Parts: sequence; structure tokens; C-alpha cells
Amino acid sequence: MTTGVRRRMGVEERRQQLIGVALELFSRRSPDEVSIDEIASRAGISRPLVYHYFPGKLSLYEAALRRASEDLASRFVEPQEGPLGSRLRRVMVRFFDFVEEHGPGFAALMRGGPAVGSSTTNALVDSVRQAAYDQMLSHMGVVGPAPARLELVVRSWISLVESTALIWLEGRRVPRDELETQLVQDFAALAAVAAARDEELATLLRGLLEKEPGDGPFTDLATRLISLASGS
Amino acid sequence: MTTGVRRRMGVEERRQQLIGVALELFSRRSPDEVSIDEIASRAGISRPLVYHYFPGKLSLYEAALRRASEDLASRFVEPQEGPLGSRLRRVMVRFFDFVEEHGPGFAALMRGGPAVGSSTTNALVDSVRQAAYDQMLSHMGVVGPAPARLELVVRSWISLVESTALIWLEGRRVPRDELETQLVQDFAALAAVAAARDEELATLLRGLLEKEPGDGPFTDLATRLISLASGS
Repeated sequence: MTTGVRRRMGVEERRQQLIGVALELFSRRSPDEVSIDEIASRAGISRPLVYHYFPGKLSLYEAALRRASEDLASRFVEPQEGPLGSRLRRVMVRFFDFVEEHGPGFAALMRGGPAVGSSTTNALVDSVRQAAYDQMLSHMGVVGPAPARLELVVRSWISLVESTALIWLEGRRVPRDELETQLVQDFAALAAVAAARDEELATLLRGLLEKEPGDGPFTDLATRLISLASGS
Repeated sequence: MTTGVRRRMGVEERRQQLIGVALELFSRRSPDEVSIDEIASRAGISRPLVYHYFPGKLSLYEAALRRASEDLASRFVEPQEGPLGSRLRRVMVRFFDFVEEHGPGFAALMRGGPAVGSSTTNALVDSVRQAAYDQMLSHMGVVGPAPARLELVVRSWISLVESTALIWLEGRRVPRDELETQLVQDFAALAAVAAARDEELATLLRGLLEKEPGDGPFTDLATRLISLASGS
């Protein structure tokens, strides 16, 4: 599109172009505010030709969402090196990059409703949550099915990450980088609360904390919590 | 219905009866698994008569949801007496009572999708979140609009409560009373993480912690966190 050279695109290439155009529009507005006409015009093709590739707006929305979901899931992938706190911090930075890129569309999707809720969109959202969950367990060195309390901590933290991003998008009243660190510390805090009544989880958590550097987000949090609890 | 005496109901009485019957069915199954025929049969009236009171299943679903929303919002109301930890503990017990009473319907609603997502259902869910938010601020003694970080803590905790209940409903693998206490402690933990970088919030939190008894959920948590952080 930027070369100025006009040529005939292949079917798959055209489909991918349309998905890209649609994703850009669906990222900035909720699906009911985006029309096929606008997508056609942006892609430089006729409205009937769009319908040749996609039966309707919903299927184009779902294809765009599928691409965004794969993108988002990939942002939770991180080399298994170094302390957990730093890894999660990098994941959170990439997650907020995604939230900024796709803000209004992300909010419309997560808030649900008739324009965006279908079994396909729900399944795509779930697939991202599952990918994030799998990555988290893998970073914690957990192999096989997680014990119930650990599963609950990780899954509820993932939902906390989602809701924090949605609240942040409303008015951006708290600096983004502060939230990135805070969410990493929230994970440690929620895990600690659960570990307080689960010896297995406590052992796992102590093992992870031992590898944390003195200037990492977890050590920082522990110091602050102790200071708060002691009233100083 | 239990007296065995047949009599003609007034319009409003009949509407309320139908809402009650619908709520019971919508609580146990997702809306697409409940038919107007079944509601009519349970209410002991004909299918056309149901349509006389409600134009369709969606309007009956919304009316049932409205009643459930008012019920749920009322469960966050609690006398402003005694330590915050105990108040929140009682609120969590009533919240999980609600979740047990309306489990499958609650899950279907919160998971969204075409059968349940409408602007009315979204608005009702939001109204409960808002009521819970207002109650939380009031229990913390905050008057007027909350500072940004406090707002974020309270709203993200409310979403954590929702997601924890949804995960719990899937398999009930963790005892309910444990989660009731854990969520109260999660609130303290998330507030503490945010307070670590907000002096105003730290002062508010210290004031609340001072009123906590030595055997309350917050003191219990602080002790356990310190023990975890010190590696003992």
C-alpha cells in the first residue's frame, strides 16, 4: 500500500490485507461504529469485493480478533531466564503496549454486549487467557496440572490484569509504568495471601523469592509491606 | 402457589410472580436453555398469557436480572460499625450465598455472549459494581470522589471478587469459607501494594489497620506475610 505500485493481490494476500485494515479500525472504535463501507474504502476496493472475501462484518471482526489474540498471547512468551519479577515486568510492558495499540476495541470486546459477544469471540478471549495461564505456570516452574489454589491465584491475577487495564483506559489517571510494576507486585501479594494457607504454595513461592534480586519488584514490595504493617 | 387456593392475580402481582419463576429458572441454567413454555408451565398459566405481561424472553430475563441485581447490591450494605475486616468478611459471606443461589445463571451472565449481552444487562451488571464500589468507599470512610489509586484498588478488587467466584463455581476445588476470608485479605494486600507508592492511601490504610483486632483477617495476613518475607 505504501509503494504506490498497483497490482492484483492473491486471495490470501487480500484476505490478510482486509484483516489488517479491519483490525486497525476495530482497535480504535467498537464494532458497531465500523462499517463494511469504511473497511472497503480504506482497503481501496469495492464493498461487494469485501463480501467476496468475508460473508459479513462479524466474520471480519472475528478474523481481526483472531489476529489480535495471537499477537496478545505471544506477548506473554518470555525467555525462562532471570528472576520471575523481571520477566513479569517485561510481559506487563508488552501487555500495556497492546492495550494502547488496541484500546477502544479492547475495551469494547472485554465489556461484551451484542455487537461483540459470540461463541467465537468468547473462545478467542478464553484462548488468550489460557495462553497467559500456561506461560505463568511455566515461568513458575510448575509442570503438569496446577494445584487448585495456585490455579486460582494465577487465573484471578490474569483477570485483575484485564480489569486494571480497562479501568486505566477510562481516564489514564495513574501512570502506565506504575501499573506495570504494581501488577507484578499484585501477583506476589495475591500469591502470598493464598500461600498463607497452603504449605505447597508457600514452598514454591519461597523458592521463587530466593532468586529475586535485592532491587527487584518483589523485594521492594516485601520491604514496603513490612514497613506498612509495622506502622513506620 | 403454595396455598392451593386458586384466585385471579392482579397485573403487578402476576408480573412479580413471573419474574420470580423466571429468576429461579435463569439462576439454574443459561438463558438460551430456558423457554417461555417452561416459565408458563411453572407459573401455571398459558404461553400467550406470559406474552401478555412480557413481550419476550429477553424482557423477562432483564426483569429477573433486575431483581437479582437489586438483591446482590443490597448484600454489600453493612452497618458501619466494628473493624473493616469483619464487615468485609460478612459481605463476602452474603456474596457467596448469592453466587450459590444463582450459580449457573451468574456464570452465564458474567461470561457474556449473545444470549445474555444487551445494553440493559450490561447496565445492570455495572449498577451492581457501582453499588459495591460506593459501599466500599463508605466503609473506608471516604467522602466525595476517590483519589485515582484508591478508585483503582477498589474497582479492581471488585472484579477480582467476581472472577474468583466464577473460577470457584467451575469445580469448587477450594472451600468457600477459605475464599471469603482470602478475598478480604486480598483487598488488604492490593491496597497495601498501591499504598506503597501513595502516601495518602498509606495514611488511610494505617488508620483502618489501627482499628483492626489482633485476631482479625488483616492482622492475620500481616503476620503471615512478614513470616513469608523473612523466609521463616
